Amino acid sequence: MSTSPGQTVADLGEHAVIERIRARTPAAPSWVSIGMGDDAAVIEPARNRAEVITTDAFVEGVHFDRAYVPAAAIGHKALAVNLSDLAAMGAEPRAALLSLVLPGAMPVVEFDAMIGGWLALAHRYDVTLIGGNVSRSPGPLVLDVTAMGAVKPRRVLAREGAKPGDSIYVSGCVGASYAGYLSRRRAGATPPEAAPGLEGQPTGDRGLDECAARFLLPDPRVRLGLLLGRNCVASSCVDLSDGLGDAVRQVTGASGVGAEIDGDAIPVPEAARRWFEEQEGLDALEAAVSGGEDYELLFTVPARRRRALASVLPLTGGLPCTRIGTITADRSLVLTRRGAKAALPAGFTHFR
Amino acid sequence: MSTSPGQTVADLGEHAVIERIRARTPAAPSWVSIGMGDDAAVIEPARNRAEVITTDAFVEGVHFDRAYVPAAAIGHKALAVNLSDLAAMGAEPRAALLSLVLPGAMPVVEFDAMIGGWLALAHRYDVTLIGGNVSRSPGPLVLDVTAMGAVKPRRVLAREGAKPGDSIYVSGCVGASYAGYLSRRRAGATPPEAAPGLEGQPTGDRGLDECAARFLLPDPRVRLGLLLGRNCVASSCVDLSDGLGDAVRQVTGASGVGAEIDGDAIPVPEAARRWFEEQEGLDALEAAVSGGEDYELLFTVPARRRRALASVLPLTGGLPCTRIGTITADRSLVLTRRGAKAALPAGFTHFR
Repeated sequence: MSTSPGQTVADLGEHAVIERIRARTPAAPSWVSIGMGDDAAVIEPARNRAEVITTDAFVEGVHFDRAYVPAAAIGHKALAVNLSDLAAMGAEPRAALLSLVLPGAMPVVEFDAMIGGWLALAHRYDVTLIGGNVSRSPGPLVLDVTAMGAVKPRRVLAREGAKPGDSIYVSGCVGASYAGYLSRRRAGATPPEAAPGLEGQPTGDRGLDECAARFLLPDPRVRLGLLLGRNCVASSCVDLSDGLGDAVRQVTGASGVGAEIDGDAIPVPEAARRWFEEQEGLDALEAAVSGGEDYELLFTVPARRRRALASVLPLTGGLPCTRIGTITADRSLVLTRRGAKAALPAGFTHFR
Repeated sequence: MSTSPGQTVADLGEHAVIERIRARTPAAPSWVSIGMGDDAAVIEPARNRAEVITTDAFVEGVHFDRAYVPAAAIGHKALAVNLSDLAAMGAEPRAALLSLVLPGAMPVVEFDAMIGGWLALAHRYDVTLIGGNVSRSPGPLVLDVTAMGAVKPRRVLAREGAKPGDSIYVSGCVGASYAGYLSRRRAGATPPEAAPGLEGQPTGDRGLDECAARFLLPDPRVRLGLLLGRNCVASSCVDLSDGLGDAVRQVTGASGVGAEIDGDAIPVPEAARRWFEEQEGLDALEAAVSGGEDYELLFTVPARRRRALASVLPLTGGLPCTRIGTITADRSLVLTRRGAKAALPAGFTHFR
């Protein structure tokens, strides 16, 4: 769609903003009886499936800064954090609603790029935009996404099933997003076209560029979650939205158990470790564990299901999973580093 | 739950804020497999029903002002606007998610009152809080609610079924909320305990107090929507969130028809009419039609279903429905007033 230079969403008006999204939304599948445009959406639930629903707000000045997060990444992440929640339940994504609270001065080109980022990720995971809402914001840009998925009732990955003796695994790597965030923040106001992982020039450090791409365009672990759930591999599962330290606390707290985490086994990428070590006052492992926004999965596997895990791992498309510890009956949380015990750092919390 | 004077949500912290909501949430029904506290909620869909889903943000400085809308009313309205959308589809409400973006300085007593208003309305309509999200806000308070309901697939009330010759009806009254809003805004900063319709003193004008109560605590027309849908009374239906003028446009636009509205039949309450007339430059009918936030239902009834309408109206618990016009094949929108034709005012839009 065309736009004149300098045009803002306030210039467009509410109806044109909605029309701009609708025009780019693919035709809905047959299970959507009524999609965008009525008072509410109407869908047919998936047959013999439970429904999984999550909502997450993505707030300017709290979760992102438009100075160093390009608009396409804002749209991408607002949906990705919700798909990550569905993945952590073992659910297959189906539909989403997008509630936008927009500053009137937002340029239409930025708005278009943001919606483009959202829709591209939706397309990748076959998520249908079924509805939403557009409001004006007197302050920050807020994207509130509700995502819905389907799961066989007995294949749900809850966080409360971990048992003493279960092994603790984490997918992908830990701390990359936080290193990417810190390096992007230091780089400051970067024009969107220079964003690594989008269409931009690299910073020169390839490892750090990969960290920045993980921060800007996290890939929710939908396929891994489905494999873990369908094959009854995991006894519990959460995503790493607020850091590994927080994820371990969520699983152990809900399951009434403790954990011993092998700090030396935590997969922190070399570039992130190096970057953390170069920052004054930062302990690399602590930064990686408490940083958050990795959107990996942390899951526990009973001894009898480790063979099942080995059989599904080749199907994840190259995503590694690393054993980082063991669930204990003792409810304490222990982190060992080079043989010595340390405290497990907490994760990100709001209002801290 | 207790709180010390002057305590803010930032003092409490994110986890305590969530715990404060959870502690007041009633036990979930058996169709909720996993409620608050996991990565996502898991529910069993209602048997042989389509699912109806809607989301609406409620934004400080745009939809409400804390100076003249008490905290309990903020919570109430954030849910009510969503239940009104479900009502307009003929759906029975089941579940909701609450995404809160909270200024850290919000007093805990205000937060508690807001949650109390939300939960009280949820209780009235048997809505289960199944999940949500708490974020910090660097600016306004934002409540984003997603509400879900169930409806028999062939009993959905869409907005696109109006046919020439159908009668147009509106429930309750029109313009009350807008008169209430204007009078509250003029009264300015009023302590919450003085809010009419809550636990406060009246302003002295009983009619205007009723208008203010409709503005602060709108009652979504859930029962009427169910009756219209289940009994196949209405050929189309929308709610009056953005005013009667906008609602008529939504129905006629989606149905490819026009409408003749009898301005003299529009049920504007006497107190609202009087109040509008006392304001300089306000035309009472125009103000009532364009004001918005009435959360009544506008619906169309084919001639052959008028007897069915008459048979369900006694079941609405005293809610009147008034015939205000007719759907026409000609796509223009005509408002007649004392025999003369006039333009139909538009409704509220963002960024106008």
